Formats: sequence, C-alpha cells, structure tokens
Amino acid sequence: MSALAAPDPDVRSAAAERLAGLATPAGALGRLGDLGVWLAATQGVVPPQPLDNVRLVIFAGDHGVAQHGVSAYPPAITPAMVRTFVMGKAGVSALAAAHGVSVRVLDLGVDDDLEGVPAEVRAHKVRRSSGAVHVEDALSAHEATRALEAGRTVAREEIAAGAQLLLSGDMGIGNTTPAAAMVAAALGLPAVEVTGRGTGVDDAALTHKQVVVQQALDRAGDRIADPMDALTALSSADLVATVGYLVEAAESGVPVLLDGLMSVACALYADRIAPGAAAWFAAGHRSTEPAQTLALEKLGLEPVLDLGLRLGEGSGAVAAVPVLRSAVALLRDVALLADLMPPAEGL
Amino acid sequence: MSALAAPDPDVRSAAAERLAGLATPAGALGRLGDLGVWLAATQGVVPPQPLDNVRLVIFAGDHGVAQHGVSAYPPAITPAMVRTFVMGKAGVSALAAAHGVSVRVLDLGVDDDLEGVPAEVRAHKVRRSSGAVHVEDALSAHEATRALEAGRTVAREEIAAGAQLLLSGDMGIGNTTPAAAMVAAALGLPAVEVTGRGTGVDDAALTHKQVVVQQALDRAGDRIADPMDALTALSSADLVATVGYLVEAAESGVPVLLDGLMSVACALYADRIAPGAAAWFAAGHRSTEPAQTLALEKLGLEPVLDLGLRLGEGSGAVAAVPVLRSAVALLRDVALLADLMPPAEGL
Repeated sequence: MSALAAPDPDVRSAAAERLAGLATPAGALGRLGDLGVWLAATQGVVPPQPLDNVRLVIFAGDHGVAQHGVSAYPPAITPAMVRTFVMGKAGVSALAAAHGVSVRVLDLGVDDDLEGVPAEVRAHKVRRSSGAVHVEDALSAHEATRALEAGRTVAREEIAAGAQLLLSGDMGIGNTTPAAAMVAAALGLPAVEVTGRGTGVDDAALTHKQVVVQQALDRAGDRIADPMDALTALSSADLVATVGYLVEAAESGVPVLLDGLMSVACALYADRIAPGAAAWFAAGHRSTEPAQTLALEKLGLEPVLDLGLRLGEGSGAVAAVPVLRSAVALLRDVALLADLMPPAEGL
Repeated sequence: MSALAAPDPDVRSAAAERLAGLATPAGALGRLGDLGVWLAATQGVVPPQPLDNVRLVIFAGDHGVAQHGVSAYPPAITPAMVRTFVMGKAGVSALAAAHGVSVRVLDLGVDDDLEGVPAEVRAHKVRRSSGAVHVEDALSAHEATRALEAGRTVAREEIAAGAQLLLSGDMGIGNTTPAAAMVAAALGLPAVEVTGRGTGVDDAALTHKQVVVQQALDRAGDRIADPMDALTALSSADLVATVGYLVEAAESGVPVLLDGLMSVACALYADRIAPGAAAWFAAGHRSTEPAQTLALEKLGLEPVLDLGLRLGEGSGAVAAVPVLRSAVALLRDVALLADLMPPAEGL
C-alpha cells in the first residue's frame, strides 16, 4: 500500500511564507503559526478558510472488561450518557454549543437497546457490547470489518455535510482498558507502562487493570503484528469504527483534531492501516492517561491544550477548536508588513 | 493596608458543590472545573454568567533602553504598531475579532506625537518615552502617580462599559527589559535569571541585555523595597498604568486574565500595592520569557495555554478567553446527575 498524500507541500510553503511576512516578529506566534500553516496545507489554500463547519462524532459502545472491575463506574452509565448526548446535556454538549461544533452520537456497541432514542443513533450498531478482551476477542473478523466500514461511512456523511474539520469522541464505561491494550500492542510496550486510572480507579483497581491489559496482550500474541487482527482481538466495535472514521477523513483530505486516549489510540491504527494518515491529524489535548502521551509521541503530535481533562466524549478536542480558529484568524487577518510600510522602512 | 477581599468564599463553595454534582466523573473536568469555580466566585453567582463582555486594553509606550541595543527591533515600530491596532490589523486584533473581545489601545509614553491617531488614544499620555532604566529613573515620582491614576481611570471606564473580564496588553519596543528588571526586583533575583530574548535577540544581545537589567537593578538599589519607588526607578509610564489598571480591577472585584511578561510583571506590583489582588487574576498563557514563569510562580498562577507565543499585545490572554468560556459553559449547561437519575440509581 502506498502512503497517503500529505497535506499540500506547495501550499504549506506558501502559508509559511505568508506567516513570515505578517506584521509580527519572526516566530512570535509560536504554535499558532504552525497550526495555521498546517490547516492551510490541509485545505489547499492560503490563507486558510475560517473553520465554520466543525463536526464531532461520538462513537459509543460497551466493553466486556467493564464487568471485570476495571472502571470506577458501572456499564449502565454508557446508555445513560448516550441519552444525555441526545438531550444535549453532557459535558461535551456544553462545550460544543459554546464553540459552534456540531455533535452526532452513534451507538456502535452499547449493551442496551436504547429504546426511544432516535433510530439514526442506532443505525450503525454492530453488536451489544464487545468482548472482554482479556478472555476473548473483542469482535469477530466480520464485525470488525463492519465496524470499520461504518466509521468510513459516517466520515463520508460528515464530509458531505461540509465538514472542514472532524473530531472524534468516545463514550463507553471501561474503554480505557482496550485503548491501553491497543497502544501497548502498537508500541510494543508492557501493560504497566500504558495503563492509567481512566475515570478514576484507586490503586488496587489500577493494579488489577494492568493485569487485565497484560492478559489481553498475552492472549492476542503475534496477531498484534497486523493492525486489523490487533483491533479484532483487543479493541471494540466503537473503537474500530473510530479507526475507520479517521482513515476515511485522512484519505479524503479532511483534517482531524484528535481528543484523548481513545481517539489517539485509534489514530495510531488509522496510521498503520493508511500510512501517512497522521499528517492529517492534530492533537487537541493531553489527557491524564499515560498511553495517550505515548501514542502522541509515536504519531509525532504535540497537544494544543494541557488542562488535566479526562472526561472523554471528545471534550478535549472541542475545547481546542478555538485555538485552531485563532491560528486561522492570524494567518487571514493580520496585516502584511509589506502593506504597512514601504520596503525601505521594513524590518 | 488591609488585604483586598478575595472572590466570595461562599460562592466558591457553592460552585465547587455544583461542579461535583455534574453528570461527569469526579475531577474529570481538570482545570476547566477549577476555572469555572474561580469565575463563579469572582462574579458572586452560581453558575457563572457567560463571558459576553470581555475587554482588552493595550498600554503602549517607549523605553529609553531601546536606544541601547536590547531589542531586535527599532523604536519606530511602537508608533507603527499603535496605528496598526487602530486599524484593527495587528495580531491581537485578529484574535480579538475571532473571539469577540473588545480592544482599546492607549498611548501612555510612545516616543511619537501619533499625529492623525484618534485623540482618545493619546488622552492619557504621560510623556514621550520613559527613561533608560539602566542610567536614569524611568519616571519622576509625579509621572508615576499620574500613570498609576491613568490606569485606574481606564479600568473604571471599562468596568462602567460592562466588562465581565479585563485583559491587559502591551506594546513597546524594548519593554521586556524594564519588565525583567521589575520581576528581578520583586523576587530578589539577579538579572541573569530573569532576562529573556524578547522579540528575538541573538546571544550577544542577550548578554548585553542582562548587563543592562543588572545595571538598572544596581542603580535602583534599596528603592526596590517599596513598590512605587521600584516602579518609578525601573518601569515606564505604560507599565505603571498597567499596574493601576490591575489594582483597580481587583479592588472593583472584576476578574483579570493576564497575558505575557509585561502583564504578569505588572500583576506582581499590583499585588504588592494591593495585597490580595492576585486572587482576582488568572494567567492566560506561558510566554517564552523566563521572568514571566518566575512571576507566575510567585503569584501562584498556572497558565491556561502554553503555545510558545511571544507576540505581546495581549495576544496570549485573548487566545485563552475561549478556555474560560469553556469553563463557564460546563458549569452552566451540563446536567446535574441528580436530574438525570433518581438517587437510588446515582453513582
């Protein structure tokens, strides 16, 4: 498979040239300058267009491991939170409303029929809960393929709706356990280095969670060498769909602002399935999960925000959207030095 | 002098209680939770009101040291940038337009008559350029008093115009030199620990700048023990006005989002003049100047953003405004767990 095309290098150069010509000291815009140049390259135009159509998709699903003491919360929270997203009353709902980001929630594998929830939320459901990855595969090969295709389909729909920037969010009690296993498998690390406290487990539960992650890795064995095999063994319907969503965005040339551990773990696999995909991704925030930082390093991404968030839902990505808008505004709206003063008086 | 009243402790407790009752895991909102609680306490109401009226004042002035090789840019840039702010074409103009922040620029001590610039920009002018602090006092005692009162007056005007949050910005070639001296004097540190590259001086100029800052400190001698004496010796008309603006905001109970080195150096002196003022301040961003980080530590403030910005102008504070809006949105608009599920099913 040949690598994906990178964001346009000629446009990147032209954007960097514009940045250097702004009426600001060289380098003074720091990462806002870099982000503006990246966005211009992804859009193929200098200066970049304002980010008026930013779209978040939350992929929800349950995880068999949640029945095995890896989370501070019971699995019944997952469907309750899907309903809360539909009502627009969750944490990410508040952030998205504040920053003009559209939110769509999809049930890929919630362990509940979600009766009364709009049908479109359940339209891509693959199964009720994914397998407990320390004792069984998360998915069958067929389910994994379906989940990947569902994510691709959803990305195509969002792009057709005009998405200039896509965000991925997650909901699922227990999901930091398969996500940690995914990162460990991709990076060749032991469970102890990748496992964090998720929504807030205590020391004893953290130790237990490390054991569960290591069991999952040991069980998967050599299958982790192939990304789809690794996903089938270690992830879940919602996480594979997220991978498909990210692959499709990158292949379609639409930039993505990543969120926390689940989003970044899936980005690792998107880049394995479609090498070069990571060039289309920026990192919204640094979560408190160690595996997220390790995965970001592997992807060569530096997060925009570092606020100690561990809410999930896409919240860190949504909170970072205004920073990308700052980057666009600077590259679009600041005077060029050449326009302010004749060359002889220039700096 | 008795300490200023802190943001309302009862409201702070009530806001913390609301935060704990949101339909999010305990602690999952990280610093966004803390910022929301702080804003509620400053406003005296739970949940906090949306930040619809956010106002930046840029205090502009020249510095005698700029004639002595401490900056990468010539002093003629200062009046050119004041004109650029008036045109709305500077870096901070673009950010402020993107995030709905009003911008006012004031000439406190620009070394230019600014002919043709609206009279209100010059209404508070104290003098043309402040003294070169390594060889003479920045201001006379009378000028320092006038500058402080000008800043207080401006803050009162902004508050009368409905400011819910005030930001301070700076413009003045050479201003990181007096600001570094101010921080060194307040913290009892030698020049070598506080002096940075400003808009980007090279190694030789950085060494020279350190010598200039140390000369200023040595010249000021014991006068640094009194904050107004220190300001008279080491700062400038624009920086003293910024101190007055911050003191007035804190005394009036209006929260402030600080910017980079100049803003934070002035916040140190505002807190010396009006002990307790710092409780009304949050830190917008971490600049690349070492003295800013040292001053933030002294004030007990952790910056919201860390993007390698060194533009000045208030740009880091404006870029951080959406993060404060995120904090407000979460505390206002997320469902309470008690409203989502009956107590028996609660977490």
